[in-house]
Amino acid sequence: MSLIVQKFGGTSVGTVQRIDAVAEKVARFRDQGHDVVVVVSAMSGETNRLIALAKEIQEQPTPRELDVLISTGEQVTIALLCMALHKRGYAAKSYTGSQVRILTDDAFTKARIREIDDQRIRHDLAQGRIVVVAGFQGIDENGNITTLGRGGSDTTGVALAAALKADECQIYTDVDGVYTTDPRVVDTARRLDKVTFEEMLEMASLGSKVLQIRSVEFAGKYNVPLRVLHSFQEGPGTLITLEDNSTMENPAISGIAFNRDEAKLTVVGIPDTPGVAYQILGPIGDANVEVDVIVQNVGQDNTTDLTFTVHRNDLSKAEAILRETAAKLGAREVKTDAKICKVSLVGVGMRSHAGIASQMFKALADVSINIQMITTSEIKISVVIDEKYMELAVRALHSAFQLDRPSTP
Amino acid sequence: MSLIVQKFGGTSVGTVQRIDAVAEKVARFRDQGHDVVVVVSAMSGETNRLIALAKEIQEQPTPRELDVLISTGEQVTIALLCMALHKRGYAAKSYTGSQVRILTDDAFTKARIREIDDQRIRHDLAQGRIVVVAGFQGIDENGNITTLGRGGSDTTGVALAAALKADECQIYTDVDGVYTTDPRVVDTARRLDKVTFEEMLEMASLGSKVLQIRSVEFAGKYNVPLRVLHSFQEGPGTLITLEDNSTMENPAISGIAFNRDEAKLTVVGIPDTPGVAYQILGPIGDANVEVDVIVQNVGQDNTTDLTFTVHRNDLSKAEAILRETAAKLGAREVKTDAKICKVSLVGVGMRSHAGIASQMFKALADVSINIQMITTSEIKISVVIDEKYMELAVRALHSAFQLDRPSTP
Repeated sequence: MSLIVQKFGGTSVGTVQRIDAVAEKVARFRDQGHDVVVVVSAMSGETNRLIALAKEIQEQPTPRELDVLISTGEQVTIALLCMALHKRGYAAKSYTGSQVRILTDDAFTKARIREIDDQRIRHDLAQGRIVVVAGFQGIDENGNITTLGRGGSDTTGVALAAALKADECQIYTDVDGVYTTDPRVVDTARRLDKVTFEEMLEMASLGSKVLQIRSVEFAGKYNVPLRVLHSFQEGPGTLITLEDNSTMENPAISGIAFNRDEAKLTVVGIPDTPGVAYQILGPIGDANVEVDVIVQNVGQDNTTDLTFTVHRNDLSKAEAILRETAAKLGAREVKTDAKICKVSLVGVGMRSHAGIASQMFKALADVSINIQMITTSEIKISVVIDEKYMELAVRALHSAFQLDRPSTP
Repeated sequence: MSLIVQKFGGTSVGTVQRIDAVAEKVARFRDQGHDVVVVVSAMSGETNRLIALAKEIQEQPTPRELDVLISTGEQVTIALLCMALHKRGYAAKSYTGSQVRILTDDAFTKARIREIDDQRIRHDLAQGRIVVVAGFQGIDENGNITTLGRGGSDTTGVALAAALKADECQIYTDVDGVYTTDPRVVDTARRLDKVTFEEMLEMASLGSKVLQIRSVEFAGKYNVPLRVLHSFQEGPGTLITLEDNSTMENPAISGIAFNRDEAKLTVVGIPDTPGVAYQILGPIGDANVEVDVIVQNVGQDNTTDLTFTVHRNDLSKAEAILRETAAKLGAREVKTDAKICKVSLVGVGMRSHAGIASQMFKALADVSINIQMITTSEIKISVVIDEKYMELAVRALHSAFQLDRPSTP
């Protein structure tokens, strides 16, 4: 018998019928003798409905009151799910964030969990009850209701699993696991049985948005085994663990991530002196624009070029700042390009495999794709290329690294 | 400067526009220098929407979870009203029942308030904040969310006013005060400036449903001056106080109440022996049927007749029980009549005025209405008559007791 935390998102509990189906799934786990704690989101659409009400009143709703308002969404779901369990004859009890006492800081609408009191939940589990907890919400030291920000229900699930030392935290979603890449791009994309937290973080931040990145960080930090599963289909899903089981026999690469949310800015002909990168990127950071890939070319004639990428929505803001800095520095030119994309190979196996990068560049050259920028980390190699070659690049890499073949166990 | 508790019901906060209008009204009171605590209900329709969701899942929703569910309704309103106050530049803070700590018993869906912690609210008032509290809800000793049952927001308002020793508890509603009788029946019905709690209780229980009867009892018990006002019209409303200002100069009667929710049962020819009333009414009470008016005729030939009224919905249930008892007792006959109504004169002035009853019977006789039953209390005389004469009786009495004329101050 083990202790399982199961988290169901808004789509999984979007209607009364779906809540019934979730109850059925939870009940089956309970039947297997597991202790079950269920974390649920608001019914899909509900949070947006509440926010719309607030905005009708106040364009920028007061954060404290916004949290009081939107935290009702999950409270509705916990009650309905308990009723659906009671109807099936299962003992179940609901908890709001405040009732568990999920203590957070007081950063309304984006609070962070500080501490979870596990007493009451443990007591209920010992009595044989299924415990149903409202995700996304907590309470600060002064008893104010807080929310963790969008997607915070995943974080609640992982944090509860950590506090309860659960054997597994299952995140139910609308995909049946983590794939080698997006199946909509590569039809031979394969579900992974296992990935490591590090890989998952790289995949998530690169656009394979199966899980909230904060919840993965959290799970990694507290070593909570995380499993991604489909809400309404059977299957083992993908287990995300600390364990790195890549070997010489196993493939070096777990997956291919990509995104086209970025835009590229280049400043040409700047003095090649110490501190110039800071002079350029400092003002960008000060304007709260996040910079992703940064490449500085080796200079000629005591000048150099600097290229970096930002989120596409921030392009015009970043460009204005960059032009100002460029003028001050006497730069030759500022160029921008929004039609780019980033494609990344991710895999902890890279650590023990040589030659992955050159293999990647060859695969792209074979299909005549020009690489504009390259950046590498210990478990990831990213290239920036022309947006129109994105699918081609992903398919070429998926095939070159044989990701369509199941890994040998 | 005084401390005012204002309660706004579901219709008054039924839309975002109305919440804005309520904020405007509250702000005007604050501008006058009063400390203001506002109690609100769920937006009209919201509680029913939530109950419908619950019933889709479970025909008889678990009471604890039902309370978790429906208490979200008021939580939405407190947040929105605070936003509307913030928009106008007023400091305001919302409280759920649990955050105030409105401690109740654990009778889910119909809990009773045990104690209110006034610390946090007093602190906020001292800081110049308007305090907005969710009506209808509380928390039990074990931290479970409870609700006070339908209309419980009035009770919350009165209980808060009592705990804070407020100068007045204002109940905003869709009528501009308490009337001598229903203006839809008598067009000269007049708004009363003042009534006593006792009168209000008799009026409320007799069908002039302006206020929840529990809240009036509560206000009487703790001597909280209660004022009924219209949410969106100006006017002084009706003040409900302990003070009995009836004198020889003032009219003995405050108002005329009526209802047609009752049905009459008669058992004829039962042994005129001690305990026979109990033998007949005991089984009725055991079946949770409430008996209202009871009249026993003086017997002839050692037999007697007993007549009583029950709620019309309980008639068939009561009749079945009565027929069984009647058979046991060897009664001659059981008769029922659902086409009756009850009309009552109410007034604390009756205590100091003689002859009210005969004046009442004469007024009814003048319009040829036959009285079927009579029952009296210290401040009330009720008659049961044929349903079809109800409006006629009310009008005749309203005129006979000159209720259309303003009372001399």
